[in-house]
Amino acid sequence: MNLILLAGTEVDASGVARVTGDRARHMREVLHAGPGQTVRIGLVDGPIGVGTVTAVADDGVALRCAFDDAVPAPPRVDLLLAVPRPKVLRRLWAQLSAIGVGRIMLTNAERVERNYFDTHWLSPQTYGPLLIEGLQQARDTRVPRVSVHREFRPFVEDELSALVPDTCRVVAHPEDAPSIAKVVASGGRDRVVLAIGPEGGWNGFELERLAAAGFVRASMGPRTLRVDTACVAALAMAHEGLVASKRRA
Amino acid sequence: MNLILLAGTEVDASGVARVTGDRARHMREVLHAGPGQTVRIGLVDGPIGVGTVTAVADDGVALRCAFDDAVPAPPRVDLLLAVPRPKVLRRLWAQLSAIGVGRIMLTNAERVERNYFDTHWLSPQTYGPLLIEGLQQARDTRVPRVSVHREFRPFVEDELSALVPDTCRVVAHPEDAPSIAKVVASGGRDRVVLAIGPEGGWNGFELERLAAAGFVRASMGPRTLRVDTACVAALAMAHEGLVASKRRA
Repeated sequence: MNLILLAGTEVDASGVARVTGDRARHMREVLHAGPGQTVRIGLVDGPIGVGTVTAVADDGVALRCAFDDAVPAPPRVDLLLAVPRPKVLRRLWAQLSAIGVGRIMLTNAERVERNYFDTHWLSPQTYGPLLIEGLQQARDTRVPRVSVHREFRPFVEDELSALVPDTCRVVAHPEDAPSIAKVVASGGRDRVVLAIGPEGGWNGFELERLAAAGFVRASMGPRTLRVDTACVAALAMAHEGLVASKRRA
Repeated sequence: MNLILLAGTEVDASGVARVTGDRARHMREVLHAGPGQTVRIGLVDGPIGVGTVTAVADDGVALRCAFDDAVPAPPRVDLLLAVPRPKVLRRLWAQLSAIGVGRIMLTNAERVERNYFDTHWLSPQTYGPLLIEGLQQARDTRVPRVSVHREFRPFVEDELSALVPDTCRVVAHPEDAPSIAKVVASGGRDRVVLAIGPEGGWNGFELERLAAAGFVRASMGPRTLRVDTACVAALAMAHEGLVASKRRA
């Protein structure tokens, strides 16, 4: 926990927050926080800042909060992900918000099993705390926007462009093609949507629809990775490509 | 399981293997294997090949094996990793062998807690099957070589060069520096050793010793990642850098 993330409702009008639960335990037991000590804080979807501990008790820690003026920009990579197995999805949430994703768009595909949509790992009550965990790890405040799209075709054809306009679009595919970092670096946009298929891959129709929506194929290399490993690797390469693109501009 | 990996001892003199356990269950229940059907196989640290199912029974599946002549080259990236928390280490093994690592050198550091060395996730009996799981996912046969080094300084100063001669050496550091992919691409070597520190980072002395051993600092970007996420992201970037370096050569 490299940042204590606070909800707006936790900070009162005088700028004091009373923090409970895991965050309070972390401050007491890991940071050994005492009155006068400062900790890095952030406001959910708001600025970063510094909290000065004013009181430590068994049921919580009180902080006087001072926030920066500027709010961090949301990450410049969005993810279009075929709903993975529940076990893989569970592992992914915190890693996605840590590595930095603006939007997470979960969609159906032929090779997605129907019952994957029934998992409680798709409910905001369950994944919300995991997204916050990843942000606290990575010192960010911007919570990824999550949407679930049960029908692939209308989503890709009609809804996608409203959600992520003006983006470089890349579909990760295990074949001989330029790498994700290269495709993004030469894409000339400052935002990327990365599409990652189900285990077994997108089918021909889905690849066609993605191509029609402007997704360029890019390679992840010759190795077939588990979806969670593939997401982290591909997102790292997309971020790398954006940095290279900026350097060039 | 995209490849059924066989130990040399499982294949008899006539080229028939009798496969049991998870691999047999996978062939029966996922691949619905019947006599005459072929499956992708590999020999541990040996060639890839094709297995033709000759019999399917509850206690196993028999395969007639035909192997390629060539053995895949080991991955060109090695990892020097400060021993992480047991929970993180457990998650890492299969991901490391899937993404491709030649050697995994686990070492001590000031910020590694002593009891991390006591975990059963550091014993070959425990991590061996996880490494095989990752190889079967990624269709590779080359098992990463694993070594554990309880003393950081003699390891880095005296033993490292014998284990990984002629390598580009990179230490991932969360500061402003060229990216891992860039450093590797411009390193002009065809093998890389990537050093990843403990949570909280290497201390000043450790960074100094790594620098003296030829490790160049490279950036992972501004976000602090969990060690398992960081390993996957950094390894992806190191592989990307090697590909870019080859393209340039």
